[in-house]
Amino acid sequence: MGAIICCGLGPGDPELMSVRADREVRAAKHVAYFRKKGHPGQARRIVEGLLAEDVCEYPMEYPVTTEISFGSAEYVRLLADFYDECAERLARLASVAKVVVLCEGDPYFYGSFMHLHARLQGRVAIEVIAGIPGMAGCWNSVGQPIALGDDVTTVLMGTLAEDELERRMRNSDALVIMKTGRNLQKVRRALVSADRLADAWLVERGTMPGERVARLMDVHEADCPYFAIVLVHGRGRRMECAE
Amino acid sequence: MGAIICCGLGPGDPELMSVRADREVRAAKHVAYFRKKGHPGQARRIVEGLLAEDVCEYPMEYPVTTEISFGSAEYVRLLADFYDECAERLARLASVAKVVVLCEGDPYFYGSFMHLHARLQGRVAIEVIAGIPGMAGCWNSVGQPIALGDDVTTVLMGTLAEDELERRMRNSDALVIMKTGRNLQKVRRALVSADRLADAWLVERGTMPGERVARLMDVHEADCPYFAIVLVHGRGRRMECAE
Repeated sequence: MGAIICCGLGPGDPELMSVRADREVRAAKHVAYFRKKGHPGQARRIVEGLLAEDVCEYPMEYPVTTEISFGSAEYVRLLADFYDECAERLARLASVAKVVVLCEGDPYFYGSFMHLHARLQGRVAIEVIAGIPGMAGCWNSVGQPIALGDDVTTVLMGTLAEDELERRMRNSDALVIMKTGRNLQKVRRALVSADRLADAWLVERGTMPGERVARLMDVHEADCPYFAIVLVHGRGRRMECAE
Repeated sequence: MGAIICCGLGPGDPELMSVRADREVRAAKHVAYFRKKGHPGQARRIVEGLLAEDVCEYPMEYPVTTEISFGSAEYVRLLADFYDECAERLARLASVAKVVVLCEGDPYFYGSFMHLHARLQGRVAIEVIAGIPGMAGCWNSVGQPIALGDDVTTVLMGTLAEDELERRMRNSDALVIMKTGRNLQKVRRALVSADRLADAWLVERGTMPGERVARLMDVHEADCPYFAIVLVHGRGRRMECAE
């Protein structure tokens, strides 16, 4: 009997994988992972050097997305078909073998595997192993507590509308902004409007080779960082009452 | 030359410690950790069975807190003195040896060690190893994605005022409420007012022996759960654009 083991791989440094995920990855006979066409894939990169020599790999390649605008009906349909197909393939494979699905960060926290998780419910046994979320790797790299005491922490996607970003940036002690990429200029403008830019950090490739930690105001506007998260640290509201 | 290695131990299951933290814990000659007087301490409990036989242990016991009200000037002073004293002790020890400080969850995310971290800056070399935050262990135990797509996730402390809790519960897709304990009834009332109670889960001792996962509405009002986090899952705003 087979099963799917979805391994949260953590933020990027393979030593930050959990003991359990590390063991599953090393013992895997079949591994599946998402990647963009023509790219090695972030999850696959994290486990480089850990996989068994005779492992079978099943890359799941996102359909080409550059020609079609995000959010268009066609794009939505393409992606849904893609996830259907991946789920089908995994379900078939997992009916006879144990398949380890590699997922960066923590799978249940904005993870792409959840698109398959929903489709595979009731069809195959699924175990999910928690991982350190990417954001935790990033705030670790800055070396300051992201939140303390009674701080409110808000996690925002850079894909949100600028006015919503601004409003929420104004109303939270600590901030984490994910999916920055093409949205970084909008995120920066919202931080300026919310008067939080001076406290914002950009962490690119957190815990990975080529890591960069910089104050966002020192990052050139034309710069387009990869795997980047923006952080604003809380100051520890009523910290003395913290426990 | 000594140093302090602060190990994030993750949510409770020792197999969810990172590979690096696991190695440091097993190799440690000196370990320090917080605990309440008369209790083994949550961090210490996680590493039970992993420590070397000849390890030296340095429990840091919180001053008795039951007779003095939280937030009072006296309590604040007592705690500040306690942290000063702990920092002094660790700095002395770390000037000649490597000391592993055990911290549940992720140290930079509302971790008590940060009170010492601030006091030890510039006095001794400190390395912090990220861990899976307690909340991630809890949402893993529920087995559903806590947030997807463009969901906004808000992390709240149960110590906040009820009206602030209610307002923020109303205005976020996904919710994590920590420091529930004595605040659980207030948290429940705020969830009712914000019309989110029906979707709330309580996870007690997440990933640990005696774990309980229940809908909060099914938890008796007189019940006083330990190490409990309340979760409300997001529904995946604009999930199709999530990439």
